[in-house]
Amino acid sequence: MTRWPIPQPMKQALDAARAAAAAGEVPVGAVVVKGDAVIAVAANATRTPPDPTGHAEIRALRDAATKLGEERLTACDLYVTLEPCAMCAGAISHARIARLYYAASDPKGGAVEHGARVFEQEQCLHRPEVYSGMGEAEAAELLRAFFRERR
Amino acid sequence: MTRWPIPQPMKQALDAARAAAAAGEVPVGAVVVKGDAVIAVAANATRTPPDPTGHAEIRALRDAATKLGEERLTACDLYVTLEPCAMCAGAISHARIARLYYAASDPKGGAVEHGARVFEQEQCLHRPEVYSGMGEAEAAELLRAFFRERR
Repeated sequence: MTRWPIPQPMKQALDAARAAAAAGEVPVGAVVVKGDAVIAVAANATRTPPDPTGHAEIRALRDAATKLGEERLTACDLYVTLEPCAMCAGAISHARIARLYYAASDPKGGAVEHGARVFEQEQCLHRPEVYSGMGEAEAAELLRAFFRERR
Repeated sequence: MTRWPIPQPMKQALDAARAAAAAGEVPVGAVVVKGDAVIAVAANATRTPPDPTGHAEIRALRDAATKLGEERLTACDLYVTLEPCAMCAGAISHARIARLYYAASDPKGGAVEHGARVFEQEQCLHRPEVYSGMGEAEAAELLRAFFRERR
């Protein structure tokens, strides 16, 4: 069976998710790229140090803004292993991310194709192009394994 | 005319909003309290340093989580001068804030009573009690004056 190869930034996001699991954090990873350059790689980290806003996307966006010295990441794309929640979708819009690629969809907490559907709101000032599914099986299995161990 | 007095934490949030305007940032302020104790006070700061996630609510929640050493601010209330956007409403839910008080409503960007209506989504795991309007005139005038000067 031929499968579309997973792009390098999504592989890095999956590696970051694996690192999160090893650290006892929910395994989600995110990568910000600008053209071919990787600007920021981040994993979910809400427990250590305690930060309710410490999702992988938020951490990657903040790091990228610091590194580029710009509030708006207009020419940047974001790769993340799970469909962003309302908080993260809002942040992606504020950051003016050009393209959003996410691996697994998240009916329970996602706010792109589920729930709040942040980018579909009339008031949403910036909508990224959205692509999903690449690395889906890998990303979902990481999450399943993590929660299976903790039950 | 008798008016309900503005609670002390909202006065502090308005002061933080004034400080943001003086620093050239959109004037929004937020305060996290636990009982009678003020845990964190923050102003909007997205420009210096550049941070697309630097809304007052996000900064106050992160600071409170650091100070209390807890990811979940279950016994805490948040006062903010403007209706939270989708990003901030999502963060408020993740942080398990007990009560949200906001001054001015925001039809253009708010996601509590407008747009994404984050707390009304079925998938929303934690809904704070929500109160609005106290300090509304003061908060709205700060924003109007800020944008008037910049036109």
